[in-house]
Amino acid sequence: MTSNRQPATPISSAEYAQRRTTILERADTSNAGGFVWWGSHRVQYLSGFAFSPTERPLGLIIAKSGESILFVPRLELEHAQEYAYVDRVIDYPEFPDYRHPMELLADLLKELGFTGNFYGDGDGYPSVMGYFGPKLSSITGLEFTPFADQLDQLMHSKSETEIALIRESAYWGGRAHFHLQDQTKVGRSETEVEDLAGAAAGRELRAVYQGRYRALGYGRSGPFAGYRGQIGPHSAFPHALNIDAVFKEGDTLVTYAGCTVFGYRSELERIMFMGDPSEEQIRFFDHATALQELAISLCLPGQPCSSVDKAVREYFDRHGLNEYWRHHVGHNVGLRHHEGPFLDVGDDTIMEPGMLFTVEPGVYVEGLGGFRHSDTILVTDGEPESLTNYPLTISELTIRS
Amino acid sequence: MTSNRQPATPISSAEYAQRRTTILERADTSNAGGFVWWGSHRVQYLSGFAFSPTERPLGLIIAKSGESILFVPRLELEHAQEYAYVDRVIDYPEFPDYRHPMELLADLLKELGFTGNFYGDGDGYPSVMGYFGPKLSSITGLEFTPFADQLDQLMHSKSETEIALIRESAYWGGRAHFHLQDQTKVGRSETEVEDLAGAAAGRELRAVYQGRYRALGYGRSGPFAGYRGQIGPHSAFPHALNIDAVFKEGDTLVTYAGCTVFGYRSELERIMFMGDPSEEQIRFFDHATALQELAISLCLPGQPCSSVDKAVREYFDRHGLNEYWRHHVGHNVGLRHHEGPFLDVGDDTIMEPGMLFTVEPGVYVEGLGGFRHSDTILVTDGEPESLTNYPLTISELTIRS
Repeated sequence: MTSNRQPATPISSAEYAQRRTTILERADTSNAGGFVWWGSHRVQYLSGFAFSPTERPLGLIIAKSGESILFVPRLELEHAQEYAYVDRVIDYPEFPDYRHPMELLADLLKELGFTGNFYGDGDGYPSVMGYFGPKLSSITGLEFTPFADQLDQLMHSKSETEIALIRESAYWGGRAHFHLQDQTKVGRSETEVEDLAGAAAGRELRAVYQGRYRALGYGRSGPFAGYRGQIGPHSAFPHALNIDAVFKEGDTLVTYAGCTVFGYRSELERIMFMGDPSEEQIRFFDHATALQELAISLCLPGQPCSSVDKAVREYFDRHGLNEYWRHHVGHNVGLRHHEGPFLDVGDDTIMEPGMLFTVEPGVYVEGLGGFRHSDTILVTDGEPESLTNYPLTISELTIRS
Repeated sequence: MTSNRQPATPISSAEYAQRRTTILERADTSNAGGFVWWGSHRVQYLSGFAFSPTERPLGLIIAKSGESILFVPRLELEHAQEYAYVDRVIDYPEFPDYRHPMELLADLLKELGFTGNFYGDGDGYPSVMGYFGPKLSSITGLEFTPFADQLDQLMHSKSETEIALIRESAYWGGRAHFHLQDQTKVGRSETEVEDLAGAAAGRELRAVYQGRYRALGYGRSGPFAGYRGQIGPHSAFPHALNIDAVFKEGDTLVTYAGCTVFGYRSELERIMFMGDPSEEQIRFFDHATALQELAISLCLPGQPCSSVDKAVREYFDRHGLNEYWRHHVGHNVGLRHHEGPFLDVGDDTIMEPGMLFTVEPGVYVEGLGGFRHSDTILVTDGEPESLTNYPLTISELTIRS
């Protein structure tokens, strides 16, 4: 199944540099020093550096000259020097330490000639794992100008190389899901089956990548698939958590699967049944499938995101299903598992080729279960394309013992 | 090994209520409506509700009357009704939706009679996964008074029931680590071994808990152990990420292990060697062990956290090891993997019985590897107690093929 596959190609140094150039072009820096970015995925998007965010501030400075400098705690110095695509890495000792890192950053920005204002995604480091500290504006005298939305907009539409990575992520998520379905049996627990599925797909991935695979994310490395507690009636909670449930005949299941590949993610979810479904299970399965088909068909360039969710909510209304509605249709996906824009009545962002959405309208029936497929859908110049090629029919998703 | 074990007991409804009473007593509510909490671990600490934080705001309101209300998106309504220990759950449809959830929350706070100021950990929901929105103060006319530090202080010192859960977490982390060590062999990849270790310890846990185990966290469910890329020279990066490394004779290894038990965490890390260590490896191992013994011996009630880190930095200085220093000694641990206070020269918080710290001074040698044990240490009335009972000697931590 994986014998002819080739490993995917990570984002190049040139693409990271191009992203920095683009964001610089979008800001008026005539009275500004440049940018300071804190969000871990924003830092990764602009520098390629994947790291574990902790209470120790780690930020990316882009001076208006174009120079890029990663400002890191001492423990990340060599790590960043090895992996980040930036001009320089500058370290501070530790947090809290004798001097607060924001004071040292203020000194650095002065050295770099920052005057006027600075752009970025926060006036200082956010409150992560017990971090505390002053606003950067208050200790530098610089004015902070929020610019996160503009960077996030840039992140919304994916390049060809990004799409290739998300496609690769979807492939490996699919392999994990295949093993999940294969290993799910009456009497086993969800965690046992998840462990088996991840391990089996991981072996396949290692055979293809021969040591060249990197998650470049701080979550799980390699393919994964599971249930997050969405087993039997508990699947009616759209965001349930693992309850170590044991599979029983008659259960409605909602799965999830994915694989972070060089930073990029995808989402695959399926409704499955333990044994032949009842008429009621079939009815809700068919509604969920029809809703998803409708939503996918509307992921068209030039249309607002809201139009997809409106059509879905109208379907709920028309079929008397409103009591089973719980959430909007989906979200963008990329370096982050969820990011804007959202397929939601309140988001009028115009869909563009290169945007990706999870399309996952769900129907949730108390006492019976949840009914939700999720696929990762690419908006193209023409018809929407699913990057998650996994079976969708009831017969293919019924597990018989 | 696990035959006589009994499952741990989760935090009771009464303990959650007591926590809310305590935080109410610490604030002057004469001119305030009460509290609004957003941080997911703060919400869990005060309500028992574990959930996946997304772009949809989810907050806990505690009115000064003592009434507790969870404000949730529609998709979490039944889930919160089932699991949260609060008086009421009130839902809003969705984010972004037609009306912004903060506007609906403003209406709710008005209904609840909030006037003057409100306390909490943020003037609105933080920027999570593409969330955006107004400050709560600006749409309610209420004044926001930060109170996160006071709640976090309450979270620093653990109750007997919390300590029991962290002890249980440490036990299962130890079991995963045992299997990690057992499965690590020349030629295997780190991910393969991690999958085997987690699966083996998970089987043991399920045999003890018989379906009653819950992580109550949104990360991994069950015991885990791994390397995060800290294999061979790559272990010299204190916060490396998984690189699918293959074990080779002579490698220095740094591990990690844990298990979230009813929300609570612990940390166990060990230096290990693939085959008999060289003199150089032994020398740095001995320094790391001596540093950790020194640091643990100083985790004493009535002393400032800074004193531990100062003694460790003096050891580095005295032994000419400063080029190998990368980070402070450790951090508190509980519902969060990292939380304050920190064993850091800049943190003068006085240690108290019931506080827990990871004690993990590290020595990092470029080209050779990292040397760091981490144990979860309880500050008591007398001597510090390690909750992570895992072998510490070089002979017990050398893997021979």
